Amino acid sequence: MSSSVKVLSAWRSPFGVRVLIALKEKGVEYEYIEEEDLLENKSKLLLESNPVYKKVPVLIHNGKPICESLIILQYIDETWPSHDNNGFLPPDPYERAIVRFWADYADKKIFEAILLIWKNAKGELVEQGRKIMKESMATLDKALKDVVRGGPYFGGENINLVDITLATWLSWIETAETFGNFKSLEENICPYLCEWAKLVVQHPSVKEGLATIPTQKVLESARETRKKYFGISE
Amino acid sequence: MSSSVKVLSAWRSPFGVRVLIALKEKGVEYEYIEEEDLLENKSKLLLESNPVYKKVPVLIHNGKPICESLIILQYIDETWPSHDNNGFLPPDPYERAIVRFWADYADKKIFEAILLIWKNAKGELVEQGRKIMKESMATLDKALKDVVRGGPYFGGENINLVDITLATWLSWIETAETFGNFKSLEENICPYLCEWAKLVVQHPSVKEGLATIPTQKVLESARETRKKYFGISE
Repeated sequence: MSSSVKVLSAWRSPFGVRVLIALKEKGVEYEYIEEEDLLENKSKLLLESNPVYKKVPVLIHNGKPICESLIILQYIDETWPSHDNNGFLPPDPYERAIVRFWADYADKKIFEAILLIWKNAKGELVEQGRKIMKESMATLDKALKDVVRGGPYFGGENINLVDITLATWLSWIETAETFGNFKSLEENICPYLCEWAKLVVQHPSVKEGLATIPTQKVLESARETRKKYFGISE
Repeated sequence: MSSSVKVLSAWRSPFGVRVLIALKEKGVEYEYIEEEDLLENKSKLLLESNPVYKKVPVLIHNGKPICESLIILQYIDETWPSHDNNGFLPPDPYERAIVRFWADYADKKIFEAILLIWKNAKGELVEQGRKIMKESMATLDKALKDVVRGGPYFGGENINLVDITLATWLSWIETAETFGNFKSLEENICPYLCEWAKLVVQHPSVKEGLATIPTQKVLESARETRKKYFGISE
């Protein structure tokens, strides 16, 4: 019996894109279902599949829903393990803990910074967002320098949980930089991360996944939402 | 060579107590190091072991620090695996995802509710905290009813990641209920969870761990901190 894999997501969700990248990386075929109106009219499938948070993405594997993107990524890694020890998490428990730590860090800090900048036109909160973003980039740069082992990625020669997590924020980081009128992913702040960003977007599964959220389209869509819900026009 | 296991924590941290419970459950000997002044004078050991967040708990295993309590719990489970398939996470990928989901949910929601109630004397934010806490208890009650398989715990006959995570919030939930003048862990809201709470606190490793944070002592300490930092007296 072939297994049924569906991804319920919204095109511009960084959390959703990472599920697509993970499935592509594992060579798993899937059906993509776009959640059309995430803000005002959620689908029956979403409400049934994720009754707790009512958020995308949801991976539905043989009818069973799995929610929360980092949990989904670990599920994908465990369900379709790589036979060459190049999974999204390494085999060693300590290295696994380190990878989980940085994936979680990237998610928490970047999202926090983006929301502060996105929801506020100016003032102290935007400044706080800029500060968090710059500090996070510098911290991730140092982490990348410390953990890379002979390869350009957080996972070494292969992409891991941190690479996938962080790569899906790239177009959103650029959007936040435009809104907040600043730069964070810059050579002088984070040279290793800049080099990483250039390479990771060329990695086949990442390239295909990110093609669904081109920066310009994310920026336009974020601009509209920002105006409609937070009353902010640039 | 015997391994060196140290736990750097603060007595009243629910995040720290779960590390102690996990090590006790696995029968791992450890040295406990109290972080004396977490608010105003952090130790050199803490700053070196957790330079990113500068928070407890930190597990230091053979000189290597691991941070973030849910990551530490998974590290402990992977480093000292149970030989009877009764680890903190079950073997099946889907069941693992479900356990991770509920442990994460319990942490996020309960902490959010407690902070709202703790930092505000009255008004809308306290009401919001009460609402989140009651809804979380009802949701966890339903989850417990749905997932329990022939045993009283989230892990069935054995405690798992959700049991340990949730048990360490009990004295803090009671403290929030006192501050917010309401009840959430009540028979009419969550009958299964109330039954679970009575049993889990008698589970040997949990009982020993929770003995370090008696509710009365947590309440007194939280009252002092609340007065000093948020200017709230009851």
